[in-house]
Amino acid sequence: MEKNNGLLIVLSGPSGAGKGTICQEVLRQLPDIKYSVSATTRKSRPGEVDGTHYFFRSREEFQAMIKKDELLEWAEFCENFYGTPRFAVEQAIQSGMDVILEIEIQGALQIKKRFPQGVYVFVVPPSMSVLSERIHKRGTESEDVIQKRLETAERELEYVTEYDYVIVNDKLEKAVDKLKSILVAEKCRVKRKPYEFQGV
Amino acid sequence: MEKNNGLLIVLSGPSGAGKGTICQEVLRQLPDIKYSVSATTRKSRPGEVDGTHYFFRSREEFQAMIKKDELLEWAEFCENFYGTPRFAVEQAIQSGMDVILEIEIQGALQIKKRFPQGVYVFVVPPSMSVLSERIHKRGTESEDVIQKRLETAERELEYVTEYDYVIVNDKLEKAVDKLKSILVAEKCRVKRKPYEFQGV
Repeated sequence: MEKNNGLLIVLSGPSGAGKGTICQEVLRQLPDIKYSVSATTRKSRPGEVDGTHYFFRSREEFQAMIKKDELLEWAEFCENFYGTPRFAVEQAIQSGMDVILEIEIQGALQIKKRFPQGVYVFVVPPSMSVLSERIHKRGTESEDVIQKRLETAERELEYVTEYDYVIVNDKLEKAVDKLKSILVAEKCRVKRKPYEFQGV
Repeated sequence: MEKNNGLLIVLSGPSGAGKGTICQEVLRQLPDIKYSVSATTRKSRPGEVDGTHYFFRSREEFQAMIKKDELLEWAEFCENFYGTPRFAVEQAIQSGMDVILEIEIQGALQIKKRFPQGVYVFVVPPSMSVLSERIHKRGTESEDVIQKRLETAERELEYVTEYDYVIVNDKLEKAVDKLKSILVAEKCRVKRKPYEFQGV
């Protein structure tokens, strides 16, 4: 029986919806899943480690990666570049490992064109007021930037129709359980099981 | 926010694959799911209760139900009729309840034509030898009937491609967890959430 490819799970959604927290918790509970570390030109926030949370790169370095086609996707968001290094993702999936990506919507939609067989999960806040509260609590951005983010988030909600699944992030524990269920279910999908029955 | 319809989960697969046991265990763990009781002309097995496991009907009674269009699907299998009473299923789904149906493959495919939005789950045994063992252990059929069932089962495995999900029923507990995950995941599917975001 030929080994099935791993799943590529793309976790996306408006900024502040909580996709990062869900992603971290799923990785903690399911350590066999590989996290794809993104590259970015944005400044690191307190506690963020280069190579673990992001590859923090200068604009020049980032543009060189684009030129060499080393990114599976890239996007500019709030005046910063974000991108997904290609090699590690492709290698892991082909070896049967599941890979989880947490990225902005523009990036997710680029990946979807290249990997329609990926699992596209959209994380949304329970309401705009909760989203506003969360972004304010983070306290890392000016009020201007926050307002810009909120307006962007409201527009971005419309992209949900491009995704396979939507998780309303009301309680973290529930959201994590939903994502774990999506993983289990996707592994049972007939379209992903071309070789399963040769041995039956 | 308009209430979403319930899910129709159709559990099917070759005879002896264990779909009945999985179905019972899921219903025990998730008592809010409604089990759709099928009608049949086959004789009841020890322990089976009319109206709970099946509606046991004579051939004449069954044919009257067909004529009155009271069945969502019906099929003849091993010289017996099996069918799904329509009314209870439709009413439950429209009121937002999830309904689980456990039926033979012919019946499942009839339902799929009428309810493409249903969730179609194919349960398979881990191997033909395990299937043979299980049917023999049940001890309710003659060797001739068993052989006929096994041949049918082998042909029926090919129908897997008509289904959304496949569960290899190796260990009951694992199979049940997979079915429960499929339910959770399907409720997160964007295509099932037309009204979710009006209030966000």
